[in-house]
Amino acid sequence: MLRVKFQDMRDEFERVLLKYEFTPSRARVCARVFAENSLEGIYSHGANRFPRFINDVRARRVIVSAEPEKMSWAGAFEQWNGKFGPGILNALMCADRAMELAKQFGIGCVGLAHTNHWMRGGTYGRKVANAGYIYIGWTNTIPNMPAWGALDNKLGNNPLVLGVPAKDGPIVLDMAMTQFSYGKMEDLAMNDKQLPIHGGFNKYGQFTTDPKEILKTGRPLSVGYWKGAGLSLLLDIMAAVLSGGLASFQIGQQDAEFDVSQVFIVFDTTNLINSRRISSLVRHIIKDYKDSTPESEKTGIIYPGERVLRTRKENLEKGIPVNASLWEKIKAL
Amino acid sequence: MLRVKFQDMRDEFERVLLKYEFTPSRARVCARVFAENSLEGIYSHGANRFPRFINDVRARRVIVSAEPEKMSWAGAFEQWNGKFGPGILNALMCADRAMELAKQFGIGCVGLAHTNHWMRGGTYGRKVANAGYIYIGWTNTIPNMPAWGALDNKLGNNPLVLGVPAKDGPIVLDMAMTQFSYGKMEDLAMNDKQLPIHGGFNKYGQFTTDPKEILKTGRPLSVGYWKGAGLSLLLDIMAAVLSGGLASFQIGQQDAEFDVSQVFIVFDTTNLINSRRISSLVRHIIKDYKDSTPESEKTGIIYPGERVLRTRKENLEKGIPVNASLWEKIKAL
Repeated sequence: MLRVKFQDMRDEFERVLLKYEFTPSRARVCARVFAENSLEGIYSHGANRFPRFINDVRARRVIVSAEPEKMSWAGAFEQWNGKFGPGILNALMCADRAMELAKQFGIGCVGLAHTNHWMRGGTYGRKVANAGYIYIGWTNTIPNMPAWGALDNKLGNNPLVLGVPAKDGPIVLDMAMTQFSYGKMEDLAMNDKQLPIHGGFNKYGQFTTDPKEILKTGRPLSVGYWKGAGLSLLLDIMAAVLSGGLASFQIGQQDAEFDVSQVFIVFDTTNLINSRRISSLVRHIIKDYKDSTPESEKTGIIYPGERVLRTRKENLEKGIPVNASLWEKIKAL
Repeated sequence: MLRVKFQDMRDEFERVLLKYEFTPSRARVCARVFAENSLEGIYSHGANRFPRFINDVRARRVIVSAEPEKMSWAGAFEQWNGKFGPGILNALMCADRAMELAKQFGIGCVGLAHTNHWMRGGTYGRKVANAGYIYIGWTNTIPNMPAWGALDNKLGNNPLVLGVPAKDGPIVLDMAMTQFSYGKMEDLAMNDKQLPIHGGFNKYGQFTTDPKEILKTGRPLSVGYWKGAGLSLLLDIMAAVLSGGLASFQIGQQDAEFDVSQVFIVFDTTNLINSRRISSLVRHIIKDYKDSTPESEKTGIIYPGERVLRTRKENLEKGIPVNASLWEKIKAL
């Protein structure tokens, strides 16, 4: 395992993106987001995913120069067509647009159709919350999770992201609808480790903590059993309807995961009567939450997004951990 | 167990509400919602809850004649003060207002502070979806669920509701952040039954399916373990901030559950370019979902809100099941 400086990782990604005909400004932004995802500990959607992204560029599933176009609008709610552009750039643009709408109307929503994987949903929640706004957003995905009581995968894990600004850094929940990500399960399987709790079904249809068995059956467990399966279905319907794009079952009919649908909702609280009291209220809520009585002395009570802040600090100091052969692969791109 | 006709139950509730000085039109609406909650199988927030509601009226935690007042606005996003009025009437009014805003701006949001328990969240999701709009809403509650890794309850179960219109009746998810409701656990405990899956912790801090042990420790399991706990925290922060009202920890400092905060977000899709294709898309998504391969022949693959439609039909025909002594109690109110 190497430790690579954030700046070096970003520069390396930028070099590759320029080679694949990203404009300088678009290469810079896209490289920064990939590097930040690794910097903040979301390795699966940072360096680990970068070669696959370049592969999607090569296969022209990602159209390097495409920019979203506004297709339909009704005041504070707009639909944009992502035209298969880079998912990160499309999503950043639509998060920006939703913030502009929120500034004008108090709330703003952009539905984004025909876009690509946005990598880490938390990126956009953090961006919006760092700018002082409140955020709700989600994406649909290929079907990779069963309905409750089903053997085959008809639902996406459709990550849902909520973000609010806070003094010490934004509070951001980035929550897929499977209890564990495929990345996590593959990682543990490779190291012959078990999941801490049930993560899916074995071939007898029983709950199991063995990631190998879950990867074999392809039946991961939805968050909260029937509840997360239901939430996933609703998020998919809403993503497809609000964006005017594809639903999970249609995405699954393609030869790869592209042409997904996303929703970006932003609230501007600056004109509300309680505006000045908000940051103090959030601080009090977090203080009360952290004052929970822990199960044991070694249990930390952490809020969504808190670990990210710590990892960011550590990786900025020590460098970002990267698998050595992966890093060689990226340098050879 | 009696079977009471929907009309008779509604009339009985109306009689009581008129006695407690509800105006005729407000008594009629409030009685209808309570009766519909039982009609559609949500007994815990229908007849079962009605005596407690009257108790809250008597204690003046619910102010019978109070109506919400607009406090703050920014285009499509408004904050209303519920003034401790009946939770059902306040929530219906704010759902209506969010629909008006959505009609004007494409999306509309109302944050409702200082209101009372809305009983069943699905009521408002169904109302909005039945009117052809898309809905996201939630409420905060008293702290009744622990943070992940905590022994004491700092989080609410903060039900989240999503609704979309569909031809056979709306698709509505009404999902509290505990895996099982207290009502469900009390019901099973009374009948010496176990939960089908882990629903909380026993006194040794282990997962258990025994509702009695969970009721004793007061440590229910959050949906998806750490994930639902995180979602609950974010929903509480957003409810308090967006409404300008109280957060769960503040609600918990009172002598009873009142003065809660709610959010109503509505989308109007009629002006979008894909508007005419939406109902067909939703039908296709549901068809694909229902085409799942079931685990066994007796497993039904149902979508959120589907069971409600069946129960409604059955209870309309046969009458609504009500505990005989509860019905006597209501008739004596």
